[in-house]
Amino acid sequence: MNNMRQKLQDVIDNKTKPQGALGLLEDIALQVGLIQNTTSPSVISPTIVVFAGDHGIAAKGLVNPFPQAVTAQMVLNFVAGGAAINVFCKQHNLQLFVVDAGVNFDFDPRLPIVHNKIAKGTANYLEQAAMTVEQCKEAIAFGKLMVERIRHNNCNCIGFGEMGIGNTSAAALIMSAITGQSIELCAGRGTGTNDAQLQTKIETLKDVFALHQLQTLKEDPIQLLATVGGFEIAMMVGAMTAAAENDMIIVVDGFIATSALLIAQQLHPDMLRYCIFAHQSNEQAHATMLHFLGAKPLLHLGMRLGEGTGAALAMPLIQSAVNFLNQMASFESASVSGAKQAERADVELIINN
Amino acid sequence: MNNMRQKLQDVIDNKTKPQGALGLLEDIALQVGLIQNTTSPSVISPTIVVFAGDHGIAAKGLVNPFPQAVTAQMVLNFVAGGAAINVFCKQHNLQLFVVDAGVNFDFDPRLPIVHNKIAKGTANYLEQAAMTVEQCKEAIAFGKLMVERIRHNNCNCIGFGEMGIGNTSAAALIMSAITGQSIELCAGRGTGTNDAQLQTKIETLKDVFALHQLQTLKEDPIQLLATVGGFEIAMMVGAMTAAAENDMIIVVDGFIATSALLIAQQLHPDMLRYCIFAHQSNEQAHATMLHFLGAKPLLHLGMRLGEGTGAALAMPLIQSAVNFLNQMASFESASVSGAKQAERADVELIINN
Repeated sequence: MNNMRQKLQDVIDNKTKPQGALGLLEDIALQVGLIQNTTSPSVISPTIVVFAGDHGIAAKGLVNPFPQAVTAQMVLNFVAGGAAINVFCKQHNLQLFVVDAGVNFDFDPRLPIVHNKIAKGTANYLEQAAMTVEQCKEAIAFGKLMVERIRHNNCNCIGFGEMGIGNTSAAALIMSAITGQSIELCAGRGTGTNDAQLQTKIETLKDVFALHQLQTLKEDPIQLLATVGGFEIAMMVGAMTAAAENDMIIVVDGFIATSALLIAQQLHPDMLRYCIFAHQSNEQAHATMLHFLGAKPLLHLGMRLGEGTGAALAMPLIQSAVNFLNQMASFESASVSGAKQAERADVELIINN
Repeated sequence: MNNMRQKLQDVIDNKTKPQGALGLLEDIALQVGLIQNTTSPSVISPTIVVFAGDHGIAAKGLVNPFPQAVTAQMVLNFVAGGAAINVFCKQHNLQLFVVDAGVNFDFDPRLPIVHNKIAKGTANYLEQAAMTVEQCKEAIAFGKLMVERIRHNNCNCIGFGEMGIGNTSAAALIMSAITGQSIELCAGRGTGTNDAQLQTKIETLKDVFALHQLQTLKEDPIQLLATVGGFEIAMMVGAMTAAAENDMIIVVDGFIATSALLIAQQLHPDMLRYCIFAHQSNEQAHATMLHFLGAKPLLHLGMRLGEGTGAALAMPLIQSAVNFLNQMASFESASVSGAKQAERADVELIINN
C-alpha cells in the first residue's frame, strides 16, 4: 500500500506541471489509484442510484413544507426523465437507477423503477420507531444486492442520491446522535422551510431525540437507523457498504447521503478510503458533517436538491483526475525543465534537443 | 432586458425543484440567458485559447524559480498534446488554440501554433517599459481578430488561458495599480516559489511599481499594460473585449486571466455581464481580485496552473446550467406539487391524475 502511494505520488509529481498545481484533482488521482491499486486507474460505467422513500413524520407537516405526496411525484418525474438528475446523468453519460425503497404510493409495476418497497413509508418516529430492525436489515441487504448487481456489470464508480420528503429530519437526527452536535445545529432548513417552520422542526426533532434517547444509540448504528432513519437511507447504507467491499469509488452526494455515510462508516471501518465527496450543500449542517468526516468536497455550488445531483456534477472532475494521471506527459517524456533540471542549468540543452 | 430577466427567472423557478435549489447553476443559467437574450440558450463549440509570451523580468530569476525557457517548452508540450489543458479539452470536446503571442523561441513555422509573435519576450520592466504602446495595441488587436475568427466559426463560449514564466508578477503589478492593494497582498507565490524567493519577488515588484509610478496609471489601462504587462496578457485583453462585443460567454480562468479582465473591463464597461468565473486559484491574491470584481467562481479546487485549465474544467458546469434550463420538466408539465399547490391542498388530485 505505502509502496503504491509513493509510486502514485511520483507519477503525479512528474507530470508537466509544478508539484501540487492541480490541487484537489491530485488528491483524487492519488485516492482512486489507491482504491484500484494501480498507477493507471479508470472510471468505468459511472452510475447513480437514487433511492426514494417516505417518512411517517412528513404526513404531519411538522418538519417539511412540502406534502409527502411529492416523493412519489418526483419518482414519476425521474421515470419521465424530467428531473435535474436526469439532465445531468444524460449530459455525462451516467447510468441512472431509481429505486422505490418505500414510497407511500402504488407505482405501476411496469414502470422502469427498481421495485423494492419495504413498506409504504416509515412509521412516525414521534410515536414509535420508524421501522423494525428486520425492515432496516432488509433495506440494508437490498442496497447491498443492488450495488453487487451493478458491480457485476463492470461499473467501478457509483454515486447515491435520494428522494424523500422529510428526510433532512432523519439525517439531522442521525447526525446529532453520532456527532454529538445539537439539534439546532443539525436541523437545516431542508427544502423551502421558513423561519417559523424551522423552529417547529427543531422543537419536534428535540422531542424525538428525547423520546428515543438517541444519545444512547451513538454506537448502535442499526438501532439508530431503525429508530429515525428512512428506507432510502437504510438502502444507501447497505449500498455504500457493498461499494466499499467491492473496491468501488463512492461518490458522496449531499446532506442525506452523508448521514447514511455516518452509519455506513460504523459498519465498514475503512469506508472513507473509498469516498469522494462531491458537493458541500447549502445546508449549514452539511459543512459541519463534512468537517466531522475530514472531507474536502469537490464542489461548492450552493445547491440543496439531493437526487444525487451533486454526485453527478462531480463525476467529470473525478474523470479529469484519472485522465491527467493517465494522459499527461511527464517531464521526461516532454523534456520540459523541472525545477531540479533548471538548477542544473541544462535548460539550453533540453531546448536545443 | 428586465423583461427577459423576469422571463428567465420564471422558467428557472418553475422547474421541478425547490426555488434556488440548483444554487450557482441557476445564476449561470440566468446570466447565459441574458447574454443570449433567450430562455433557451446554448453553448456552441466551446473553445479555449491559450496565449503564450515571455517576460523580460524572468530572465533575471528575481521573480520566478523556473527559467524563461519553460514557456517555449510548455508551448511545445501543448502542441504535442501532453499538458493538462490538452487532457481537459479532449475530455470535454473543447476546441483548443495555442497562440505564440511573444515567446522567446523560434518555433518551427509548420507547428500547429497560431504564430503571431509580437517580439521575443517583453523588455525587462526593471529597466524600461515592457513593451511600446504600439506593440501593446498590436497585441490587443490580434487578440480581437483571433476571437472574431473563432466567433465566425459559430463558437459562442470561450475561455482564455496563458503560459508565460514570470507572468504572475505582471498580473500582481496590474492588480496593485488598479485595485490599490499593496504589492505584498498582490504578489502570490506563483509557481513553485519558496519564502526567500517570495520576499525577493515582493521587493523587486515594489521597485518596479515605484520606478514607473504605477499608481498614476490606474485609469490608463493601455499605458499600464504596456508598462508591466505581457504580450499574452495584452492579447487576452483584446480577446475578452471582442468576446464581449460579440455577445459571447467569457469563461475567466485564474489569476493572470483575471488581471487581463481588470484591464479589459476598463475598455468595455459592460464586460462583467459576459464573464463567468471558472475557478478561484490557490493564489491568495486571486481571491482578493475576484472579490474586487464581485465574482462568484464556480470551482475552488486549489489549482494554480494556468493554461486555461480552470476554464476547461468549468465548461461542463456551464453546460449543466444551460441543460437544466432547456431540459428539465416544469411543475406544470410534470404535475409535481409546488409549495403553492400544496397550500391549496390539491395534492391528492394531482397524484390521482
